[in-house]
Amino acid sequence: MSKKLTSREKDYSKWYNELVVEANLAENSAVRGCMVIKPYGYSIWEKMQAQLDKRFKETGHENAYFPLFVPKSLFEAEEKNAEGFAKECAVVTHYRLKTDPEDASKLIVDPEAKLEEELVVRPTSEAIIWNTYKGWVQSYRDLPILINQWANVVRWEMRTRLFLRTAEFLWQEGHTAHATKQEALAETEQMNNVYAEFAENFMAIPVIKGKKTDSERFAGAEETYCIEALMQDGKALQAGTSHFLGQNFAKAFDVKFASKEGDLQHVWSTSWGVSTRLMGALIMTHSDDQGLVLPPKLAPIQVVIVPIYRGEEQLAQISEVANRLASELREQGVSVKYDDRDTHKPGWKFAQYELQGVPVRLAIGPKDLEKGSVELARRDTLTKEFVSQVEVVDKVKALMGEIQEHLFNKAKAFRDNHITEVETFDEFKEVLKAKGGFISAHWDGTPETENKIKELTKATIRCIPFEGNKEEGKCVLTGEKSKQRVLFAKAY
Amino acid sequence: MSKKLTSREKDYSKWYNELVVEANLAENSAVRGCMVIKPYGYSIWEKMQAQLDKRFKETGHENAYFPLFVPKSLFEAEEKNAEGFAKECAVVTHYRLKTDPEDASKLIVDPEAKLEEELVVRPTSEAIIWNTYKGWVQSYRDLPILINQWANVVRWEMRTRLFLRTAEFLWQEGHTAHATKQEALAETEQMNNVYAEFAENFMAIPVIKGKKTDSERFAGAEETYCIEALMQDGKALQAGTSHFLGQNFAKAFDVKFASKEGDLQHVWSTSWGVSTRLMGALIMTHSDDQGLVLPPKLAPIQVVIVPIYRGEEQLAQISEVANRLASELREQGVSVKYDDRDTHKPGWKFAQYELQGVPVRLAIGPKDLEKGSVELARRDTLTKEFVSQVEVVDKVKALMGEIQEHLFNKAKAFRDNHITEVETFDEFKEVLKAKGGFISAHWDGTPETENKIKELTKATIRCIPFEGNKEEGKCVLTGEKSKQRVLFAKAY
Ligand SMILES: [Zn+2]
Ligand SMILES: [Zn+2]
Repeated sequence: MSKKLTSREKDYSKWYNELVVEANLAENSAVRGCMVIKPYGYSIWEKMQAQLDKRFKETGHENAYFPLFVPKSLFEAEEKNAEGFAKECAVVTHYRLKTDPEDASKLIVDPEAKLEEELVVRPTSEAIIWNTYKGWVQSYRDLPILINQWANVVRWEMRTRLFLRTAEFLWQEGHTAHATKQEALAETEQMNNVYAEFAENFMAIPVIKGKKTDSERFAGAEETYCIEALMQDGKALQAGTSHFLGQNFAKAFDVKFASKEGDLQHVWSTSWGVSTRLMGALIMTHSDDQGLVLPPKLAPIQVVIVPIYRGEEQLAQISEVANRLASELREQGVSVKYDDRDTHKPGWKFAQYELQGVPVRLAIGPKDLEKGSVELARRDTLTKEFVSQVEVVDKVKALMGEIQEHLFNKAKAFRDNHITEVETFDEFKEVLKAKGGFISAHWDGTPETENKIKELTKATIRCIPFEGNKEEGKCVLTGEKSKQRVLFAKAY
Repeated sequence: MSKKLTSREKDYSKWYNELVVEANLAENSAVRGCMVIKPYGYSIWEKMQAQLDKRFKETGHENAYFPLFVPKSLFEAEEKNAEGFAKECAVVTHYRLKTDPEDASKLIVDPEAKLEEELVVRPTSEAIIWNTYKGWVQSYRDLPILINQWANVVRWEMRTRLFLRTAEFLWQEGHTAHATKQEALAETEQMNNVYAEFAENFMAIPVIKGKKTDSERFAGAEETYCIEALMQDGKALQAGTSHFLGQNFAKAFDVKFASKEGDLQHVWSTSWGVSTRLMGALIMTHSDDQGLVLPPKLAPIQVVIVPIYRGEEQLAQISEVANRLASELREQGVSVKYDDRDTHKPGWKFAQYELQGVPVRLAIGPKDLEKGSVELARRDTLTKEFVSQVEVVDKVKALMGEIQEHLFNKAKAFRDNHITEVETFDEFKEVLKAKGGFISAHWDGTPETENKIKELTKATIRCIPFEGNKEEGKCVLTGEKSKQRVLFAKAY
């Protein structure tokens, strides 16, 4: 349990894996590449879900549910999408097992129960959803359709990592249908903004909004907007994407509507999603060598109270104070756990809650009873102070906002310090190696150059940022004309 | 849209299917046996989920997430469970598609991407979860484990019906681990009681609590407790089950704990679940030939306001009243939709909201402006009255409770009227044919008699009820000794 983690400096990737497991967030399962999300990890995901869901509903979307399986013939209808996902599809071919004739305690796939048409386990749901929308859209009166789905999806990844890249993951996928291109583009942008606002104000993760290049785009999209975050090891992480799908899926599934003027037109569409990958972003943005650091808005337990005592009588006295403080804090909307278990020592509890990222710890011992004080420890700064019992509720209440802000500002300072403008390719390589982070450089706009840079450095174009300097320049590799700087980075 | 439904009397099953589709609850998809849950249907399910989730957490459970897939070798570990589900398993055998060499626009399953071990799409998660718990349990200190999962599951059913029996469905499955048999039995009973309380107080569906006979038990369970509801056509519907699994899964997956005394013992366990099948129960308990009837506690829209007007000016005047009433109602916690769309006539709207089961409709026309009144229509009784604008908010507020109670009482009266005690097998057959419902009869306790009765009448033992008369008697079929009456019925 309160075993020490490998330090980030020593082995960042090991630190990450150990943290995820030791902090009770998730673990690997018996199924290759699939994870078990443990209760503590899931409760953080539930908080993210609740906030995102609220934002989706506020922007006019409703939830619905579409099938897990996509018949192969529908899956292949939109060619680019199919091509993009074909190599990582789990495929259901049979619908029954039977007793192994050679060993009655075993089961085998029943060869007589072969499906006429194979079913793909959804890697994303555009195909099955657009085949459904076809039946829902006749006239402009049926538009827009603004639907979101919370679901599991499967992409057969070869190299997997807890939360960051798993064969099965949980996500939400919005799928909208519109009468005009402008409306669909506005939706694409709106949802990318929703993700950015959520990431920054709720997860305390600063993000850069931009669009993807042709080669990094979602398979089947005309444009992919994204939010990009920067992890502590200098690698970028794509935290959310919002796709303008043009009329591609409407054409593949023949979804047309009668306009006000009476002519038939193909529908315009978008899709957008974030996933349990956000858990990885959360961990790698804020945590330290002691373990997880959680922004208060996402912490399942915001405050833990630990009693330090000898004997039942002392515990009773401390519990009186602890329970009073806990109920006062709860009245203020702060979630509190009072851990008076006698199966674990205070030191073990301190280490465990530190590892699990609880933002504030209050400890109450016999001396505190005398002095009317409590010891308050902040997880983000690892600082401690004594606070009077009279002031501690107000103090903690204020700290919730303060810690949230502090984490964001710290992450933003780190991120801003790791956006480096370079003018030459030598500089590009040096900065990438020595410092990492985003490299802001001119690019000639061709996939050939993009690929060449990727081959030479492993850095990819994370996005063409929407905001900031739009000056023209010369490509860092070829010297050809460039319209604006783009952001390169190595990425998760 | 506002097309008339087939009446229940004419064709109950057709009425049900039409209602589900026309009320925008769900529809069949391109995947055999899998449904699309439409936004309106899903929003009702979300309300159920929120209430159930609250009750699970209040009883000490946490949510987590386990893999969709179960490797075949784990699936077959608990023999009875495996046997029970083997015949309806969707099986993943491959992890890649490739371009069809004979037609570049098509995809085929890549024969080189065959899995070494097939993966079963979970029909229920005991196997994958108990394989995980094995790693979590060493000592009595690690117990109990109280976990719930919200998930999709797949059971390859041959004859499917929207919500009632679908190849994929949504559900929650609780899986708990305990140090003692008594604790596991208490948990089994507690969760069955949680389901009963939820069904009655929230869904307004009266249920009978009892246990299943050996032949109707969950595959792998020692006892299955259940709640049984009665539909309007006299058929029973199992609305929830809670299983005492004994040490079966602990033995199959070798999960032991060191007791306080230091000896190693197998863990005791339970599992319990309800699914989107509850949507079917809801529909068939309350609805009528006009469409869905929703208890206010489950209605996504509790009150709809429809303006009846000619011209913009009149609409403006009516909207002023409507918006005022809407905001006053919302302050009282009532959800309101003001439907001022000019694309549909009032008559169409009336029919549509009736079909969708909105509990209260308020209509405001020019005469109401003069008189300071509104027309109030109740969905459950189909009655209308004029109410003064001054009193309508209080009136509607009170109606929310009144309608909820009325629906429960009506369903309970129907159910109670359809529990018939019979003494002879002739009586049994007559009542089953003429009246349907639950038949309370003596049974000799043998599976042979149970089967014989099923063959002869298609009625099964729905449960051995926990409450009520426990008098002994003689079996209705064989005349052998019986310990108590049990409830027979034809069932969904
Ligand atoms: Zn997407
Ligand atoms: Zn079950």
